[in-house]
Amino acid sequence: MTKQIIKAAILGATGYGGIELLRILSRHPNVEIVAASSENSAGKKLSEVFPHVTVKHDIILSKLQDAIKVPDIDVVFTALPNGEAMVIADEVLKTGVLIDLSADFRLKDEKVHAAFYKMKHESPHLIESAAYGLPELYMDEIKSARLIANPGCYPTSILLSLVPLLEAGVIEAGGIIADSKSGVSGAGRTALKTPYIYAEANETMSAYAIGTHRHTPEIEQQLSKAGAGLAVMTFTPHLTPMTRGIYSTCYCNLAGDKITNDEILEIYKDKYFNRPFVKVLDIDTLPQTKWCSGSNNAFLTARIDRRTNRVITLCTIDNLGKGMSGQAVQNMNIVFGLPEDTGLFDIAIYP
Amino acid sequence: MTKQIIKAAILGATGYGGIELLRILSRHPNVEIVAASSENSAGKKLSEVFPHVTVKHDIILSKLQDAIKVPDIDVVFTALPNGEAMVIADEVLKTGVLIDLSADFRLKDEKVHAAFYKMKHESPHLIESAAYGLPELYMDEIKSARLIANPGCYPTSILLSLVPLLEAGVIEAGGIIADSKSGVSGAGRTALKTPYIYAEANETMSAYAIGTHRHTPEIEQQLSKAGAGLAVMTFTPHLTPMTRGIYSTCYCNLAGDKITNDEILEIYKDKYFNRPFVKVLDIDTLPQTKWCSGSNNAFLTARIDRRTNRVITLCTIDNLGKGMSGQAVQNMNIVFGLPEDTGLFDIAIYP
Amino acid sequence: MTKQIIKAAILGATGYGGIELLRILSRHPNVEIVAASSENSAGKKLSEVFPHVTVKHDIILSKLQDAIKVPDIDVVFTALPNGEAMVIADEVLKTGVLIDLSADFRLKDEKVHAAFYKMKHESPHLIESAAYGLPELYMDEIKSARLIANPGCYPTSILLSLVPLLEAGVIEAGGIIADSKSGVSGAGRTALKTPYIYAEANETMSAYAIGTHRHTPEIEQQLSKAGAGLAVMTFTPHLTPMTRGIYSTCYCNLAGDKITNDEILEIYKDKYFNRPFVKVLDIDTLPQTKWCSGSNNAFLTARIDRRTNRVITLCTIDNLGKGMSGQAVQNMNIVFGLPEDTGLFDIAIYP
Amino acid sequence: MTKQIIKAAILGATGYGGIELLRILSRHPNVEIVAASSENSAGKKLSEVFPHVTVKHDIILSKLQDAIKVPDIDVVFTALPNGEAMVIADEVLKTGVLIDLSADFRLKDEKVHAAFYKMKHESPHLIESAAYGLPELYMDEIKSARLIANPGCYPTSILLSLVPLLEAGVIEAGGIIADSKSGVSGAGRTALKTPYIYAEANETMSAYAIGTHRHTPEIEQQLSKAGAGLAVMTFTPHLTPMTRGIYSTCYCNLAGDKITNDEILEIYKDKYFNRPFVKVLDIDTLPQTKWCSGSNNAFLTARIDRRTNRVITLCTIDNLGKGMSGQAVQNMNIVFGLPEDTGLFDIAIYP
Repeated sequence: MTKQIIKAAILGATGYGGIELLRILSRHPNVEIVAASSENSAGKKLSEVFPHVTVKHDIILSKLQDAIKVPDIDVVFTALPNGEAMVIADEVLKTGVLIDLSADFRLKDEKVHAAFYKMKHESPHLIESAAYGLPELYMDEIKSARLIANPGCYPTSILLSLVPLLEAGVIEAGGIIADSKSGVSGAGRTALKTPYIYAEANETMSAYAIGTHRHTPEIEQQLSKAGAGLAVMTFTPHLTPMTRGIYSTCYCNLAGDKITNDEILEIYKDKYFNRPFVKVLDIDTLPQTKWCSGSNNAFLTARIDRRTNRVITLCTIDNLGKGMSGQAVQNMNIVFGLPEDTGLFDIAIYP
Repeated sequence: MTKQIIKAAILGATGYGGIELLRILSRHPNVEIVAASSENSAGKKLSEVFPHVTVKHDIILSKLQDAIKVPDIDVVFTALPNGEAMVIADEVLKTGVLIDLSADFRLKDEKVHAAFYKMKHESPHLIESAAYGLPELYMDEIKSARLIANPGCYPTSILLSLVPLLEAGVIEAGGIIADSKSGVSGAGRTALKTPYIYAEANETMSAYAIGTHRHTPEIEQQLSKAGAGLAVMTFTPHLTPMTRGIYSTCYCNLAGDKITNDEILEIYKDKYFNRPFVKVLDIDTLPQTKWCSGSNNAFLTARIDRRTNRVITLCTIDNLGKGMSGQAVQNMNIVFGLPEDTGLFDIAIYP
Repeated sequence: MTKQIIKAAILGATGYGGIELLRILSRHPNVEIVAASSENSAGKKLSEVFPHVTVKHDIILSKLQDAIKVPDIDVVFTALPNGEAMVIADEVLKTGVLIDLSADFRLKDEKVHAAFYKMKHESPHLIESAAYGLPELYMDEIKSARLIANPGCYPTSILLSLVPLLEAGVIEAGGIIADSKSGVSGAGRTALKTPYIYAEANETMSAYAIGTHRHTPEIEQQLSKAGAGLAVMTFTPHLTPMTRGIYSTCYCNLAGDKITNDEILEIYKDKYFNRPFVKVLDIDTLPQTKWCSGSNNAFLTARIDRRTNRVITLCTIDNLGKGMSGQAVQNMNIVFGLPEDTGLFDIAIYP
Repeated sequence: MTKQIIKAAILGATGYGGIELLRILSRHPNVEIVAASSENSAGKKLSEVFPHVTVKHDIILSKLQDAIKVPDIDVVFTALPNGEAMVIADEVLKTGVLIDLSADFRLKDEKVHAAFYKMKHESPHLIESAAYGLPELYMDEIKSARLIANPGCYPTSILLSLVPLLEAGVIEAGGIIADSKSGVSGAGRTALKTPYIYAEANETMSAYAIGTHRHTPEIEQQLSKAGAGLAVMTFTPHLTPMTRGIYSTCYCNLAGDKITNDEILEIYKDKYFNRPFVKVLDIDTLPQTKWCSGSNNAFLTARIDRRTNRVITLCTIDNLGKGMSGQAVQNMNIVFGLPEDTGLFDIAIYP
């Protein structure tokens, strides 16, 4: 039996999404990396730019336009700034699958996209066909898709927490709050702004983008799919002094007053039964972001606050793993008919 | 004119609350530290135990029982584990003022205290007379008190945010959520448990004590004073990888749909007018915990989420400053008739 | 062709060395973990103690004495406190290979061992046969050994830097200084002492154990093997506020004044030619500890200071990787005739 | 008796040196800040730019050229990039004292300055008159100076360690090594480069500028003053994942083999007798950088390594305190005839 080999290109290989894709794909048993682009470092060997990337076969970085012209590419990962994947999507899709780590194809409503991302969509005709790449929730759509909109990091942690409960009808669609905390790597490698330098971001915590964060419409769009009549939710992101990790604490009103905490956890366990990456924690354990570092795992649990008739859901992921590049590889596995955890067996680095 | 000199004793001088009291009081123009106790280090010079405490006049640490026998003490600060101040309170109050940094005298209901702190109260007759030492909210009670229950760090940040809005009637008393994030020093200097060692607490975030945290009844007790008919609230504390700082993000339902964000900020500004430590931030600025490090300042603001008819309040303090020892000194100033910011002019260390 | 399967036991599975062994071995293609011991958690499932260890086949932790009785064990890793492997070594060696991560078998001179580790050696008859498990320097001894003394983390980083230069005769054996900086995980998971709690170890740096560190005789013993007549060296370890990583900066007097920096780097490149884990950096790049995090890689370079006729060597490793568990697995690979990098392809987590 | 009031201007008030000057001077009993400049924020109130700077009397930031024209300025602190103070020095000195926190006036040899700082000196006629502002070593020169070259952070920690030993003749002038570790704030607030963003600088350590660091000639110049015939030394700076602090570990050959460790410490104690900021630690205590955070203190000790006939000196400072702005204020106190610790009583923030 011949082993399936997927030829992959990584566009934007020197940002944090790209570096993490390189780390994962370089050890993936079914992947050959045939191109990696970086506008600033084109022509250099990967090992020159990142001495720590000790891959067996060194890669020469190329310009994006050269990278996508490499013949027989099966899958292109775009780890580019927002607005760039949409420009090349048609060309890429002629020959291969496109897994886009940016926000270009996440929002179904072109006008909402324009309002939040301050740009005109260059490929509106492709939006409808893009699958929202959160495999634990939308497996079937992903299986048959050629264009995957890889979810945002915050939405991944929040949707994994809320969709099963909305679908089960145990929480109200209205009144949901998501209070999320993210490590600083979420700002990216090119975030050369004062708030992100070490001396400013270290030893401090701060909320940001209250009421305006671009992930809000993405979360609301998917929540609406899960629970009819959903209006709106409140999302408050916070910057946290750690490199990796997202912690999402959500507050939901229970739809009735009968459901038990065990039943809530059962809903999660049923939903994520036999899925390798979402670990449902029992009543005696609360998740930590460190448990996800460098892995594609999510840890999830919930606690009922009987006095206020609420459920508090708690979910941790690595923002660069399940929140970004790990999930992108999981999507690739599914599209190409591989077991979804192929090449994604990493346990978190601990401590 | 003779300068007023207050003779102070610090019981529990080698914990984080005690060290911070030493730092502040050693530069206080009206204070002479006449005793400092440490059961483990009694007999040693302070500079032996803490080389960094470069006070002009070195202090010899004593046993607690010796410390409280020093004659003519005007004020005793108890920075002791819960349950110890209540044992010596009567004796201390015979001659001086007692400012207790523990939880012994915070809860008015003896049964609630017993349930949350798992101990019998040793001085129930003193509970009624204890003033809850949050000066921006309860100035009058503090002025005339001899026994001050210094508030918990979480409650300080949450009450400063909520009480003015409850008193103004602009938020509903029901449905309040407080999502708080604390630096690790909150666990204390003797927290020799695995979760608090560096390699475990670094680079991770985790919620804890959901639905069971001891500060919950303390917050609810004070919220009830501010808004009649208050039932219960939800409080979720999180451990954050930084040494100092508390960030409290609270979510409240607006009582009507007319109030503007500016009006909310005006309520804060009115409430804290001419008070030196609570800084109300305008609509274009969100607080950071780093802005408080080493100071007695609190930064506070609020944002209306019109779509969900909620207000999100955001407050930062230093858990060892306004959340503990800074506030204790502020209380002392008030009790002794000094301007409340005497000896508390520190600006935060930045960066 | 049948794939070779090595049955492995990990003794001390819940310390940092043990956890890292579990992380590596659970993905090793030729290893089956047949036992894992923990005195405190015996009887529990591994996933109960460490939710983040998401291995396919859960492991039930056992007492050490039960673990070593599991039949047909091929290799036992002892990640135990000093003094424990020496007690069970004879029993283990009856049936399998012993790879000891402690210091029990590193020192050839029993008296030196007794002086530095304050204990009587329980198995002095085994000391001679123990191979010092630093494969890039002592491959032949390791290949034929049944008992491997896995090196200390500091010695690994220092010996990789110095041995090639001593062997080539380009540095003087006298006058060597090693100034090393280590992350806090080096203190271990059970280091429940004040200096290691987060609030104490965060945001500070400190030297420790000057002139008395137990790794000193270990380094000197191996340096002596490399350069005849070596007397003694100076070793200063420092605790650094990061979880993982060792940075060793060594200062050596050049034996002559002719050698160029390129020639020094050539000596390294020759020595480590075709070795997968030691990466020699060219003159324009200095190593970082982050480049090693979670991997078995070492980064190494040197700079000549012509004005003082010295060479400064710089080496980084992950103290729990090449400095401990990664190297232990590398040793296992060699003993069992596998390519030395089997199961050790991890690239560092970055950022 | 009238209290002396010194009118001070801070040029470059929004960098880390400037912010720290503001923090210290705003509480200095003899200082009135009459101007603070920032080219980018001129016209804004200080509290707008830095909400955490809660000074009683808000300051309006001005352009540098306007700031120096404020009448009757007694002292100007220049916390500007290298090369800017030298341009305005003559003008400033017409009316006041100039304390320059940059490197413009530290090097006596104009050619060395040009070689290391890649710029032509604009005020070579002033170099000779500039006092090197390290008060514990050069008190007399500072007292009578009008132009103070405030030392670099690394040189401060290294010179405090070495000068007394050189002067006492107990160490050799040749062969000195300084291995220094600095927090990231040393790179400044405008260091918007990839290596300084949080995700890159966190959890890693790295040496830099080996053999080329600009502080090398500054250290050598002052060592030469202390010990005749000194040639050159080796200086290796390292970037450390913490915000503040410098740890300098120096290695020196002892001039004889008779001197004891106690005698070395006595030399330090004699030299720094009655000086408020240099704390000499005894044989049982090693310094930590955290002990200096936010203070003007330095902690210093030494250990003889008898086997190699060396002494290892260990010194910690806050790079923004004694290494920069604290020392600048100390120099001001001396020039204006105040006790040198006026306004500098801060104990370190701990933890």
